Amino acid sequence: MKEKRKRLEPTTYVKGILDGNRIILSRAITLIESQLEEDQELASKVLEKVLPHSGQSMRIGITGVPGVGKSTFIEQFGKLVLNEGHKLAVLAIDPSSSLTKGSILGDKTRMESLAADERAFIRPSPAGTALGGVGAKTRESMLLCEAAGYDVVFIETVGVGQSETLVKGMVDFFLLLMLAGAGDELQGIKKGIIEMTDALVINKADGENVKAAKKARREYTNALHLFPPNASGWTPKVSVCSALKNEGIVDIWEMILSFQMKMKRNGYFEENRSQQRVAWMHENIRYMLERQFYSNRKIRDQIESVLPEIKSGKTSSIAMARKLLKSYFAEIKN
Amino acid sequence: MKEKRKRLEPTTYVKGILDGNRIILSRAITLIESQLEEDQELASKVLEKVLPHSGQSMRIGITGVPGVGKSTFIEQFGKLVLNEGHKLAVLAIDPSSSLTKGSILGDKTRMESLAADERAFIRPSPAGTALGGVGAKTRESMLLCEAAGYDVVFIETVGVGQSETLVKGMVDFFLLLMLAGAGDELQGIKKGIIEMTDALVINKADGENVKAAKKARREYTNALHLFPPNASGWTPKVSVCSALKNEGIVDIWEMILSFQMKMKRNGYFEENRSQQRVAWMHENIRYMLERQFYSNRKIRDQIESVLPEIKSGKTSSIAMARKLLKSYFAEIKN
Repeated sequence: MKEKRKRLEPTTYVKGILDGNRIILSRAITLIESQLEEDQELASKVLEKVLPHSGQSMRIGITGVPGVGKSTFIEQFGKLVLNEGHKLAVLAIDPSSSLTKGSILGDKTRMESLAADERAFIRPSPAGTALGGVGAKTRESMLLCEAAGYDVVFIETVGVGQSETLVKGMVDFFLLLMLAGAGDELQGIKKGIIEMTDALVINKADGENVKAAKKARREYTNALHLFPPNASGWTPKVSVCSALKNEGIVDIWEMILSFQMKMKRNGYFEENRSQQRVAWMHENIRYMLERQFYSNRKIRDQIESVLPEIKSGKTSSIAMARKLLKSYFAEIKN
Repeated sequence: MKEKRKRLEPTTYVKGILDGNRIILSRAITLIESQLEEDQELASKVLEKVLPHSGQSMRIGITGVPGVGKSTFIEQFGKLVLNEGHKLAVLAIDPSSSLTKGSILGDKTRMESLAADERAFIRPSPAGTALGGVGAKTRESMLLCEAAGYDVVFIETVGVGQSETLVKGMVDFFLLLMLAGAGDELQGIKKGIIEMTDALVINKADGENVKAAKKARREYTNALHLFPPNASGWTPKVSVCSALKNEGIVDIWEMILSFQMKMKRNGYFEENRSQQRVAWMHENIRYMLERQFYSNRKIRDQIESVLPEIKSGKTSSIAMARKLLKSYFAEIKN
């Protein structure tokens, strides 16, 4: 992948994607991920053309801390989805990818049999913050995959950073993988994630773990009932499975199908997607406004120099914000 | 309060506040709440002068849905705090105040004996979104109250809107009032609030309710243990009380004192405040950037006209954001 490739014509990308050509799809995603201005423009054109062919998939977010067995789960769950006659795209948001060249999530050997299957498309997606914000690339890549005929999409993320909120904002169904344990199994999970989930799946319910997993299911089911309901009217479900032994996986798929049916019937499915699209526009506006502001050299220096007095409370945060805005607008008008 | 008052000299406000003069304090808060540019400038000057004298209070956020008994609770809890030798300011963020002139929370008759006490200062705080964002006025008013010698501040809010996140960002301790019930008592509470709280207090634990309240305490205690811990290392506590019968109130005050001691010892107390001040500056920057953007007439018209194609997914949200930003910057450079 290191050699420089020539860019293709926009129509070549579009036709390739709509034909389900995996190589072209891959190259189009690379284009989307590129930071070069020309690539961005080309990617925009391609995206606009395939957009009418996107949106037809079931979008499922899958998260969980490292060690929870995400790869094995996705492999088993993915195979089930393929056997049900679907085409599956797995996009893994990789928080490490902007730091290191190699990446945990990007390693296709994690999901060997899924990666070998023609009906599955696996791709790590950089979480990088440049040009459009965390997750921007993933969302656009998802749309390309849909246009290429993948009618089930998994967005995989590690439940420890801020990527979950973003994933929540681009999927139809959000699933949190967990382990049964002594109540401290969530030390690694960020606050607020549990309240986002549509399903909480306790993995590794096998061997000596079965009893603990069932106990955890009971406890979480009770706990979730105490919490406010989702906007959709869907009560989050708790289930147990063993990805390793391939047990309980089919129940999860059936749960998702039942969710999809209910949400399409009560109108929430489309309503949610509309809201996501509008929210996504506003998030990008906010992101771009802030990026413009904070990338201003003079502003950055100014912030750096006043930070100590802000921290100590010597200067009012609001007064300083007003002052910085004034400098900024004076600056860009020049 | 309707007649127009002359503005005072900045030094008069500053001296009055530092002397603990309630009338001057009140007028300074009115200045802070004013939308007039001259008032804002004057308020800024006053705030900067009294800022070094602020920050010495224990800031407690209190939220809960209407009907939970917030007024009675605050009245009883407030009296206890006064009897412990403190001066108490109660700032109620009133979501209704920007819509109607009258307001539920602003009604001092809600807390009659507290309102009559010289050592307490009660004031509704408009939630209005203008000039500095929701809660901006409340935060600045709190600083004035502190400078006037109030060493305990309650920030009261109704747990149904977006004001809780803001309150969470300005207090040291966040308390959620609840009722025991059939598990559906939280229908009105916004998702995410429970995970913000340092204490969950089940009110109206009297008469026939005692048993249900104790059961709820057990259930919530179990539930909270399943959730990720707070950044402070503090495990949220669940307690029961009857504000009406004045039972269990002292335990809550002791819990808060114990929290304060622990957090000051482990450094989280100051660390949290520093972070709040920095976050508050950035929130205000974001707010002001967005306000500038969205108040641009041309941009607003443009958004209105493209909204249907964004909702339906016909146009990419990111592409549209980019386009709007381009128009905006072209516009303001002219």
